[in-house]
Amino acid sequence: MTTEVSNQDLMLTLGRAARAAARLLALAPAAQKNEALTAMAAKIRRSAADILSENRRDLEAAQGKNLKASFIDRLTLNDARVEDMAKGLEDIAALPDPVGEVIAKWTRPNGLVFSRVRVPIGVIGIVYESRPNVTADAGGLCLKSGNAAILRGGSDGFHSSAAIIACLQRGLDAAGLPRTAIQMVPTADRACVGMMLDGLDGTIDLIVPRGGKSLVARVQQDARVPVFSHLEGICHVYVDKAADIEMARKVVLNAKMRRTGVCGAAETILIDKAGAERLLKPIVSTLIDAGCAVRGDQAVQAADTRVIAATEADWGTEYLDAIVAMKLVDGVGEAMAHIARHGSQHTESIITEDTATAERFLNEVDSAIVLHNASTQFADGGEFGFGAEIGIATGKLHARGPVGVEQLTTFKYQVRGAGQIRP
Amino acid sequence: MTTEVSNQDLMLTLGRAARAAARLLALAPAAQKNEALTAMAAKIRRSAADILSENRRDLEAAQGKNLKASFIDRLTLNDARVEDMAKGLEDIAALPDPVGEVIAKWTRPNGLVFSRVRVPIGVIGIVYESRPNVTADAGGLCLKSGNAAILRGGSDGFHSSAAIIACLQRGLDAAGLPRTAIQMVPTADRACVGMMLDGLDGTIDLIVPRGGKSLVARVQQDARVPVFSHLEGICHVYVDKAADIEMARKVVLNAKMRRTGVCGAAETILIDKAGAERLLKPIVSTLIDAGCAVRGDQAVQAADTRVIAATEADWGTEYLDAIVAMKLVDGVGEAMAHIARHGSQHTESIITEDTATAERFLNEVDSAIVLHNASTQFADGGEFGFGAEIGIATGKLHARGPVGVEQLTTFKYQVRGAGQIRP
Repeated sequence: MTTEVSNQDLMLTLGRAARAAARLLALAPAAQKNEALTAMAAKIRRSAADILSENRRDLEAAQGKNLKASFIDRLTLNDARVEDMAKGLEDIAALPDPVGEVIAKWTRPNGLVFSRVRVPIGVIGIVYESRPNVTADAGGLCLKSGNAAILRGGSDGFHSSAAIIACLQRGLDAAGLPRTAIQMVPTADRACVGMMLDGLDGTIDLIVPRGGKSLVARVQQDARVPVFSHLEGICHVYVDKAADIEMARKVVLNAKMRRTGVCGAAETILIDKAGAERLLKPIVSTLIDAGCAVRGDQAVQAADTRVIAATEADWGTEYLDAIVAMKLVDGVGEAMAHIARHGSQHTESIITEDTATAERFLNEVDSAIVLHNASTQFADGGEFGFGAEIGIATGKLHARGPVGVEQLTTFKYQVRGAGQIRP
Repeated sequence: MTTEVSNQDLMLTLGRAARAAARLLALAPAAQKNEALTAMAAKIRRSAADILSENRRDLEAAQGKNLKASFIDRLTLNDARVEDMAKGLEDIAALPDPVGEVIAKWTRPNGLVFSRVRVPIGVIGIVYESRPNVTADAGGLCLKSGNAAILRGGSDGFHSSAAIIACLQRGLDAAGLPRTAIQMVPTADRACVGMMLDGLDGTIDLIVPRGGKSLVARVQQDARVPVFSHLEGICHVYVDKAADIEMARKVVLNAKMRRTGVCGAAETILIDKAGAERLLKPIVSTLIDAGCAVRGDQAVQAADTRVIAATEADWGTEYLDAIVAMKLVDGVGEAMAHIARHGSQHTESIITEDTATAERFLNEVDSAIVLHNASTQFADGGEFGFGAEIGIATGKLHARGPVGVEQLTTFKYQVRGAGQIRP
């Protein structure tokens, strides 16, 4: 009980310090923030040995815990990954500064001049799992967008994150910015996550979870402040009867197999019944030959003996693996109905040479990202030209799709007058 | 228990119907939505006698309840208020349609063409109190922005709202749009509000409360879906030492007294100590002579014997009445610190001839609306040029400031390719 109370005090102190830092950050010139980012990168490079040694402490502690190999891989740092962190911070420094941009400006008949000006959101809480590099990425993106960050990483990466945070704070120092601009929750007490999701007494404006489905589900369920997140990416490719078969094979293969573990990877392929004779076999065999397991309806099973039967659950499963669900649909209408029922409003693509059908799909499908004749794996802030991203949001408000530095800002109205009063 | 379960079923049916209607509305052409709005207005005019008769039922039922005169006034309809509703719907029809607007468009080096396109949010729940005209305003704004609406008005206005909803649904009919585009919760059971705040099993995307502080506080506290709202408008005018005295008197008087019951009315006046000798007396006497009670610190009390002493609570009070709190501050810095501590991030104004001081105030004050040399009463969607508004939001995400039809939309990305795959 004493610990709980004192951790609550500690968290509130953290929150108030972040709020105070956010006020300063909101006014910090672009050059000062970029100076900090560059200094952080340099400090990370100089501290590589320390960071790797702290990472070994985490890895040794993790060994007794019977964790999955993929988890250990995400936790593991090496020289290349440390360099990637440093380079990532330099890339963020090189992005245009979003703060202060005049998004719109107009004059009313009474002479009042209205400006809609981009400003930081305030304080952003990042809740993540074992990947230590999220510490640097998220801290850097928040700083660039003028927001203070409170980072709470998984306890398994505690020492690695602490070593990285120390570098980030040295960078802040070097640029004359407060260390409290990027803070780390200094305890593994899980109750601290709950406090963050409650908004830390009004000091946290936004939560961004980074991690697996169970983490995101918990954050979405419990957060009392806005959340930018996606629970899953059940992305679809619909191959229309008017598709070019070579393009369809190439795009489907890329959408599914380029990287199977990313949220923009396709999980379900829908094939237009009217074009199945021409399209089905080559697409199925292309996927299977590339090492992908195909689970299909009866028609898809009939196309290749290596296809196994899909169950109802397959249409709502995010495999994140070399597995795909595939079925025939009766044209773009049934494809869109299937997507509306089973999709996650993340990313969907149509392959067709018929522009009218493509435009219908682009207009009617209610997902953050809809593509025509392109791979779903373009669902990525970098591919959009946003520079780095902190994740992809499938919520409808404020940020939808890739969340880059611009999406980490909001706006206010500045109104300039000459003594106007309202009649 | 049986009633509760059946009301839950009823609400879920309402939610699913709204979701289905939203899919159609999202694709409805501007002309069809405008036809519905115009038909609604005509039907309201033709049904004026019915609406007023249903309103009398509500008023008679309210008489036994010992309600405040202001409450009864808000509940009361008359010919002029019915005509205002009809005219309001025609004004909404005349606004530009926000849906489908291409907000941004760019091409990447790989030839992919990205468009950020404005789309409706989906289903909006409106929770309001006794003003029957909110039914028409909110229904019309949601329709224009392509969203389905679920309206839940106070039980005291039930019959009035039902009569208005009937007109709105006849207008939807006339334009070939589903009646389920604007639905009313058909029971006074308060548990239904709770179900809406929970999001009705994922069928409600956004809640907009319209009413007093206790309603808004409950919605903000309990809602599990995003909310556009402001709890209160504790708006400040800071009169700088470099203010023009005539402008300051005129703007302060308007900001406080034009209408005292609106959220953009000023509640606290801060006077720069360095200019007090010139500024304080005329401003205080202007307000008191106009019938405003002034509560001040010692210096303000010394300026006029009619000033009464302010207590600490006055700095955080939204009077919504002919009362103002006033104190001296040590320049723009202390003024901004006072606003950060006591304000509600709604609307603040600075009066000064010193552009540098004004720009500092406009940049540093973290409120939805900041003005220079203009009345805080311009905090209104109509004055911004947005046409009708559904309210003012002080939250930082998505909609900040006046919420008009544009703020009731979101966006998605359409990406047009020629077979691009991600390397």
